[in-house]
Amino acid sequence: MRIARFSIDGTVGFGVVEGEPTDENGLQLDIIKGHPFAEFERSGHRVPLSEVRLLPPVLPSKVVAIGRNYAEHARELGNEVPDVPVTFFKPSTSVIGTGDEIRYPSISSDVHHEAELAVVIGRLCRDVPRERAREVILGYTCANDLTARDVQRREKQWARAKGFDTACPLGPWIETQLDPEDLAIMCTVNGEQRQLGRTSEMVRSVEDLIVHITESMTLLPQDVILTGTPAGVGPVRVGDEVAVSIEGIGTLTNKVVRRD
Amino acid sequence: MRIARFSIDGTVGFGVVEGEPTDENGLQLDIIKGHPFAEFERSGHRVPLSEVRLLPPVLPSKVVAIGRNYAEHARELGNEVPDVPVTFFKPSTSVIGTGDEIRYPSISSDVHHEAELAVVIGRLCRDVPRERAREVILGYTCANDLTARDVQRREKQWARAKGFDTACPLGPWIETQLDPEDLAIMCTVNGEQRQLGRTSEMVRSVEDLIVHITESMTLLPQDVILTGTPAGVGPVRVGDEVAVSIEGIGTLTNKVVRRD
Repeated sequence: MRIARFSIDGTVGFGVVEGEPTDENGLQLDIIKGHPFAEFERSGHRVPLSEVRLLPPVLPSKVVAIGRNYAEHARELGNEVPDVPVTFFKPSTSVIGTGDEIRYPSISSDVHHEAELAVVIGRLCRDVPRERAREVILGYTCANDLTARDVQRREKQWARAKGFDTACPLGPWIETQLDPEDLAIMCTVNGEQRQLGRTSEMVRSVEDLIVHITESMTLLPQDVILTGTPAGVGPVRVGDEVAVSIEGIGTLTNKVVRRD
Repeated sequence: MRIARFSIDGTVGFGVVEGEPTDENGLQLDIIKGHPFAEFERSGHRVPLSEVRLLPPVLPSKVVAIGRNYAEHARELGNEVPDVPVTFFKPSTSVIGTGDEIRYPSISSDVHHEAELAVVIGRLCRDVPRERAREVILGYTCANDLTARDVQRREKQWARAKGFDTACPLGPWIETQLDPEDLAIMCTVNGEQRQLGRTSEMVRSVEDLIVHITESMTLLPQDVILTGTPAGVGPVRVGDEVAVSIEGIGTLTNKVVRRD
């Protein structure tokens, strides 16, 4: 099931995405009564997806991100795969949805795309044992862990390099029925392929990361885990259209604009 | 004015703290109608502070913290004062109030206290010019930037070392009328002085930090900036009572317990 968050005529809601892009009537949204992180049912009231604005599918209290979780990507930046996963935060103020604009930050002249599988947490949890890790997951979405590479090189901690406004596109929706173990993940810039990998190349699995994170901190419903990026990262420029696609989920598309 | 957030009989509210601890009737809370981050007035309805439970004075969407902002502390850990402030996040799930318990994290055996002046942001802001930085501040409170020093040494990014549950005590309340430039700041453990400094020793001022942070990210009302710790950091142990006192604000006290 694909759960989208949207706005229409000033109202915000959730809906279940139905159909395929190739259908005669395109994708439809079956509007949800209730909240997808609690009890909900479909209303049967449908609107065409083309008539709504998609929003970030969640409003996370925190985004916990993992660095160097694909060996080939670690090597391309001259790094080793670490013994312990590199763990950092992206703030809620960096989250945008599909179709929203990435505003090029004034502190950088070398912003890179990083396509990542995002895990959406469905319930409050801590000290999650490995065998129960799947139970705390509501679903999966696409993420772009935008990184000001020049700032990252200059500053020891990555809060500014990876936490600037609009640095965390998430979307287009949450897919709740998906096995994350071997999915194609791709990033294109202006339609040209830049990154292509498979989630099976992750050094640590989704379950391992949930154990690692929750042994020190509580995750809340709507919190998001970014699972690292495959090789092929590179710059984006003002005017570019960046798209992250993950097999079984869909495509997250954002245009890069000058920060006003 | 000292603004406290509290709970009594299952209800949460804000109040203005009146009086001094030495007064015959002790400190009183004048209950606020409205919200301190918007319009509000005092109700004139008073309860003794001793009858309420103080809560963290804010619910921050993010805590932006600064490392190595006191030269003597940077040196005691063998570090240089960096050209650019070391900037990192502590998550909302790490925030507790005065009187709450610090739960010793299972990932560490060397948790240190770090007494810090905390700045509470009063309005949404970005790209704040230096001369207007004071306008975005609602007030100041005490913070303890608890740090798992062993984890910090092992892990390149500090999300787990400084972001574990209960790693960010804040309180006891927000003082809105205060010049932050030269205040005594102290940390005691079981009544014994461990850290003593003055905010005038900060490498970067509160205004400089607001400029630095908001040039890349938006700050929201209730967001908090931690301004760095003076020399004297050291371990806390299960059973210890840790107190952070700042001149003109008050004292933040927390007991360290075993994580259940």
